[in-house]
Amino acid sequence: MIVRPKLHWLRMLFVWRGSVLPIIMPQLIATTAFAVVITMLHGAILSWKVSLNFVPFSLIGITLAIFLGFRNSTAYARYWEARTLLGTILVGSRNLTAQAISLGNDPQAAKTLAYRLCAFAHAVKHQLRGSDPQADLQHFLSAEEVQQVRTARYPASKALVLTNQWIGENLRSGNLQAPTVPALEQSLAHLGMSLGGCERIASTPIPFTYSVIIHRSIYLYCFWLPFGLQDAIGYMTPVIVCIIAYTFFALEALGAQLEDPFGTEANDLALSAIAFTVEASVLELLDEAPRTVQPELKDFVLP
Amino acid sequence: MIVRPKLHWLRMLFVWRGSVLPIIMPQLIATTAFAVVITMLHGAILSWKVSLNFVPFSLIGITLAIFLGFRNSTAYARYWEARTLLGTILVGSRNLTAQAISLGNDPQAAKTLAYRLCAFAHAVKHQLRGSDPQADLQHFLSAEEVQQVRTARYPASKALVLTNQWIGENLRSGNLQAPTVPALEQSLAHLGMSLGGCERIASTPIPFTYSVIIHRSIYLYCFWLPFGLQDAIGYMTPVIVCIIAYTFFALEALGAQLEDPFGTEANDLALSAIAFTVEASVLELLDEAPRTVQPELKDFVLP
Amino acid sequence: MIVRPKLHWLRMLFVWRGSVLPIIMPQLIATTAFAVVITMLHGAILSWKVSLNFVPFSLIGITLAIFLGFRNSTAYARYWEARTLLGTILVGSRNLTAQAISLGNDPQAAKTLAYRLCAFAHAVKHQLRGSDPQADLQHFLSAEEVQQVRTARYPASKALVLTNQWIGENLRSGNLQAPTVPALEQSLAHLGMSLGGCERIASTPIPFTYSVIIHRSIYLYCFWLPFGLQDAIGYMTPVIVCIIAYTFFALEALGAQLEDPFGTEANDLALSAIAFTVEASVLELLDEAPRTVQPELKDFVLP
Amino acid sequence: MIVRPKLHWLRMLFVWRGSVLPIIMPQLIATTAFAVVITMLHGAILSWKVSLNFVPFSLIGITLAIFLGFRNSTAYARYWEARTLLGTILVGSRNLTAQAISLGNDPQAAKTLAYRLCAFAHAVKHQLRGSDPQADLQHFLSAEEVQQVRTARYPASKALVLTNQWIGENLRSGNLQAPTVPALEQSLAHLGMSLGGCERIASTPIPFTYSVIIHRSIYLYCFWLPFGLQDAIGYMTPVIVCIIAYTFFALEALGAQLEDPFGTEANDLALSAIAFTVEASVLELLDEAPRTVQPELKDFVLP
Amino acid sequence: MIVRPKLHWLRMLFVWRGSVLPIIMPQLIATTAFAVVITMLHGAILSWKVSLNFVPFSLIGITLAIFLGFRNSTAYARYWEARTLLGTILVGSRNLTAQAISLGNDPQAAKTLAYRLCAFAHAVKHQLRGSDPQADLQHFLSAEEVQQVRTARYPASKALVLTNQWIGENLRSGNLQAPTVPALEQSLAHLGMSLGGCERIASTPIPFTYSVIIHRSIYLYCFWLPFGLQDAIGYMTPVIVCIIAYTFFALEALGAQLEDPFGTEANDLALSAIAFTVEASVLELLDEAPRTVQPELKDFVLP
Repeated sequence: MIVRPKLHWLRMLFVWRGSVLPIIMPQLIATTAFAVVITMLHGAILSWKVSLNFVPFSLIGITLAIFLGFRNSTAYARYWEARTLLGTILVGSRNLTAQAISLGNDPQAAKTLAYRLCAFAHAVKHQLRGSDPQADLQHFLSAEEVQQVRTARYPASKALVLTNQWIGENLRSGNLQAPTVPALEQSLAHLGMSLGGCERIASTPIPFTYSVIIHRSIYLYCFWLPFGLQDAIGYMTPVIVCIIAYTFFALEALGAQLEDPFGTEANDLALSAIAFTVEASVLELLDEAPRTVQPELKDFVLP
Repeated sequence: MIVRPKLHWLRMLFVWRGSVLPIIMPQLIATTAFAVVITMLHGAILSWKVSLNFVPFSLIGITLAIFLGFRNSTAYARYWEARTLLGTILVGSRNLTAQAISLGNDPQAAKTLAYRLCAFAHAVKHQLRGSDPQADLQHFLSAEEVQQVRTARYPASKALVLTNQWIGENLRSGNLQAPTVPALEQSLAHLGMSLGGCERIASTPIPFTYSVIIHRSIYLYCFWLPFGLQDAIGYMTPVIVCIIAYTFFALEALGAQLEDPFGTEANDLALSAIAFTVEASVLELLDEAPRTVQPELKDFVLP
Repeated sequence: MIVRPKLHWLRMLFVWRGSVLPIIMPQLIATTAFAVVITMLHGAILSWKVSLNFVPFSLIGITLAIFLGFRNSTAYARYWEARTLLGTILVGSRNLTAQAISLGNDPQAAKTLAYRLCAFAHAVKHQLRGSDPQADLQHFLSAEEVQQVRTARYPASKALVLTNQWIGENLRSGNLQAPTVPALEQSLAHLGMSLGGCERIASTPIPFTYSVIIHRSIYLYCFWLPFGLQDAIGYMTPVIVCIIAYTFFALEALGAQLEDPFGTEANDLALSAIAFTVEASVLELLDEAPRTVQPELKDFVLP
Repeated sequence: MIVRPKLHWLRMLFVWRGSVLPIIMPQLIATTAFAVVITMLHGAILSWKVSLNFVPFSLIGITLAIFLGFRNSTAYARYWEARTLLGTILVGSRNLTAQAISLGNDPQAAKTLAYRLCAFAHAVKHQLRGSDPQADLQHFLSAEEVQQVRTARYPASKALVLTNQWIGENLRSGNLQAPTVPALEQSLAHLGMSLGGCERIASTPIPFTYSVIIHRSIYLYCFWLPFGLQDAIGYMTPVIVCIIAYTFFALEALGAQLEDPFGTEANDLALSAIAFTVEASVLELLDEAPRTVQPELKDFVLP
Repeated sequence: MIVRPKLHWLRMLFVWRGSVLPIIMPQLIATTAFAVVITMLHGAILSWKVSLNFVPFSLIGITLAIFLGFRNSTAYARYWEARTLLGTILVGSRNLTAQAISLGNDPQAAKTLAYRLCAFAHAVKHQLRGSDPQADLQHFLSAEEVQQVRTARYPASKALVLTNQWIGENLRSGNLQAPTVPALEQSLAHLGMSLGGCERIASTPIPFTYSVIIHRSIYLYCFWLPFGLQDAIGYMTPVIVCIIAYTFFALEALGAQLEDPFGTEANDLALSAIAFTVEASVLELLDEAPRTVQPELKDFVLP
């Protein structure tokens, strides 16, 4: 996730970091170069004038606009839902820890639960990013538990079961009274829902066919555009084609980044920072310091 | 559901799998051929010039755009709601199994519940796709129970009752304490809501009249379009008509696929994969291996 | 609700059932006839030429588009919320019945609850449609209870209280344990919310002033349109006016139907079918057959 | 809230009640008169011709359209959320009354709760409208309680505490069993959320700056429009300006009414009718008649 | 938050307070001045005529419109979600206090809880605004507790744990019965969710790249616009450029303010007023007066 202080409006026009310009550079240059060639040939291919004007482009433009708008809202909605689900992991972990501290009689037992919740948060991060949770988990679980979680098909789900087992054990040991169990299970259910929601977003992309239709429409549009503008604005054609193509390509590229928000691209969610926040917040309730290293901002990007 | 690795922007322009081109080919060829004929006749029918230009098309275009945009958002919303409901089945099944393991005293009893939840997930899949659940259910239920579920009017609902009965039996047998029952019932309620939601989406299409109005407007638009473009862009008319028709037809076809997300078309939800995930995830909590065969990607389509 | 198998794209252009054409025919003919007259007079009234062209129509068009799009999304949102609420009645009824079967000790008591839930579903249908519930209720309630429900100001609410009383009676008789009551009350609360939501939609139309502004704008637009198109497209004016008017009028008419989804028009919700589904599904859990007659598809319309 | 039977399409064009025409008359006349003057001067001020055509207006139009569309959706969303919250008060009150009747042993106690709920509904109405609740409350509360509620800073919240106290008293008196209390508290929580939601909508307008930007853009647009249309459509300019201005002004005025849905304007919510419905519905569960007078439709407006 | 009585439509055109004009003045003047220069040079730079007309601007306009519309809806959605979350703090605090009063036996204990809830509300405000909570907290907590909250990494979370501990202490002391605990924990969970939601909004901006693309597109558009309008509307170019730029810049500036709703700009949420409302409302349930000073409207802005 990109975190930058507010920029002056002039400075923001020329910012490079956080822009998608580097990603769309090849297409943008190709499109503009093509427009330059067409402009120099006065819209004719092999002395065969292509009879286009702006009319078809204003007709197509609206449909393209709908497509892109839809694509962007959907991609952002996925991004924000993912963020909300991760936020719920923080909320549920804090809540469960506070309940263990206040409703149970044994402060030591609450600590065990808190560590398991920290492990769960890190397991979610590693499962979504496909990385190895070993290093983070060993701060909070026994070697055997770490092994169980690591080798599971669904590691985060395995980690979450440990917290559920904590409730069962403490119910049987008398540390928790049965009537208070539904309250703890409620918090736990939120954690399970958050995990399931993240897995859903990670495993279900926006229907591939959408991306294909949008992609094709944009490139067909930008390919024919120079012919359409040639007669109306002459040598300014490449400038305008470049601006329009920039807007379309940039929107499409950003949509593709946000659509899959758990990756490690600049605009993806700061999964490491969120997992650390869960850990720090939960451990603070026990008056303990965090055990893993706080992720740091590098080039304005929080990992 | 189509699952593809990210494609290069050039490669994506010419992809065939996952495109709706095969489906809309006939209409697209017919429309383009008609445009070619009209262009060759210079927009005249029987030497009777049709007096149209681009003006009416820009007026209609916006309304069409609204229609299509609305249709697409609605179809996608149904698709995503269906996916979310199926995801809730995974969440609720995991949660219930974990509760049975940790809150009950008898590990064997938890297994029975887990098997019933696997059966429920497969029953949902078969009910939504109208297929026979026998083969999948027999891995998890007794022959008699399989028969009960198969012959029921609402098989998945029948399968879900078995899990509710598990709670009743274990409450009476003393395996569960009464005050913890609301926690398990809460998870069960999520399963019931998910099933009901899927049945609702499956049984209630987008109002048929919407499809009719949109369909008619698109085809009327594409039919008259060659007459309107003829004077402005001459022999380029068929090219532009083809591009515009492609965008409209493709959007409409994709909307019709997404609207009914439980089918077996390429863009439909991967019901088999989801049911297998529920099974694998629930059985993993018991440290057991999945019993049915994992659905595999074929031609980039997950069934 | 209209239920039709998928139609071929050519066949769909000429479908009559499920189209709103019959409803908007008078306006459409009037508007087109007016356009024919104006075209024959060459846009002049009493040899006084009305100086209009397409410019104002493209300016107004966008605002109209917003209006109509907003109207449609809102009407559809009401339709879908209503469908979801009715679906929740199915979910809650099934859930409550399953809970009564599994958590209670007395199977006969569960039957009583199931019958009351069937009565509730039918009472909702009749209250929303303003019809007499007598015929349906007598299958499930005693004559005295039927009378109580029928004569109540809010019959469905009265029917729902019967299920709440069932919980109270079975709690006192010892058939239910007190700690499980919150689970049943949770399901019951969903039923109450669904009923309240349906009553809300039925009693609160989209603000009347919206309908007035949209209606006026559409008709003013279609009235002046022939003058604006006359100079540009000559004798094709009536054709285009007819197409544009069709789209606008059809959208408005469909919006008005969906806005009030509990009626008996072709595009309204299939309340009878839904009530029957609740009954059939709940009784199936008791291994009983449905008692009322299943509503049948007539002319592709499910009542 | 305006409640009218469906009108014939011709009749609806000329309806006066429920239209915002009376409110926007002054601006509309001023704008049209200005357009008439400009048309008579042929777009020149002091023989200085203002060089405008339709181009800038089509450029600005889209942005204005976005603004207005956003404003309207937001205002309607507030309206509908408010209606839903008030509907939840009905649902929660009914549910709580039914629970008191069925879960408690003392029918007389249930009556007390029902009266307090009626008082709460009326207190909400009076708090949101800033009127004196005395007359309505005295039907349901003792003089001392009425005084407490009336003089409170947040009267409805004070009235709601009375129902919470009822639960406490009946728990201590043994009328309610402790394990059933969470079910009643759940219903009560819905009432509290509804009240808080209404207070939130009432105290937080749409950001004032939005209204300012939209207002200015609309008036700037309508001020310059006659100059832009003058050359294109001549003496029809005032007619078109009047139609466009009507649409814009009407939309803005309606948005302003819906945005603050608790007032007493024609399009505001029927708070009195809703409060009466709560009372009538809750008392019907006790087989009692309503105690306040049912609000009546006057000039198609329900107060 | 700006709170103003309704203004007359004429008065509203010239309002200065609550407008974003002061913020966007520099850009607006620069853009307009540039347009004046271009107009005086008749669109030529160094006697080199820039060949632009309105065509490209109508093509780009729609995409820009989508961008801005999306940006605004998203920013407002964040603003309104933040407001709703803060409203939930009020609802949850009132509810918890009422439960403590009615379900507990010891009125003194309820007071302690109420004070802790007041402290929580103020802690949320100070955490979101990054200010020191000392002054507000000391009205409600012991010096030691104030110190604990102040020095915590997540002060509001620390303050919330105090309320959870209250439940634990009162459960152990017998003031609360175990079966009623889930009801209190439910209210507490809402408080935790509200806090987590606010932290999520505060820590996750709209993806930075969006702001960059929109910013660039707007400024590129306004930079080239004078060249495009020059031939069509001559010396009116600067006027129109100024109006269009005003709309675009104002929208962008307002979006940036709403996006981060917890700040102290004029359009930000009235955090101080909301915290005071929680305090006043909760203390009123104890029949106590508020202890901090009510925030006052200054220049129509509520802090």
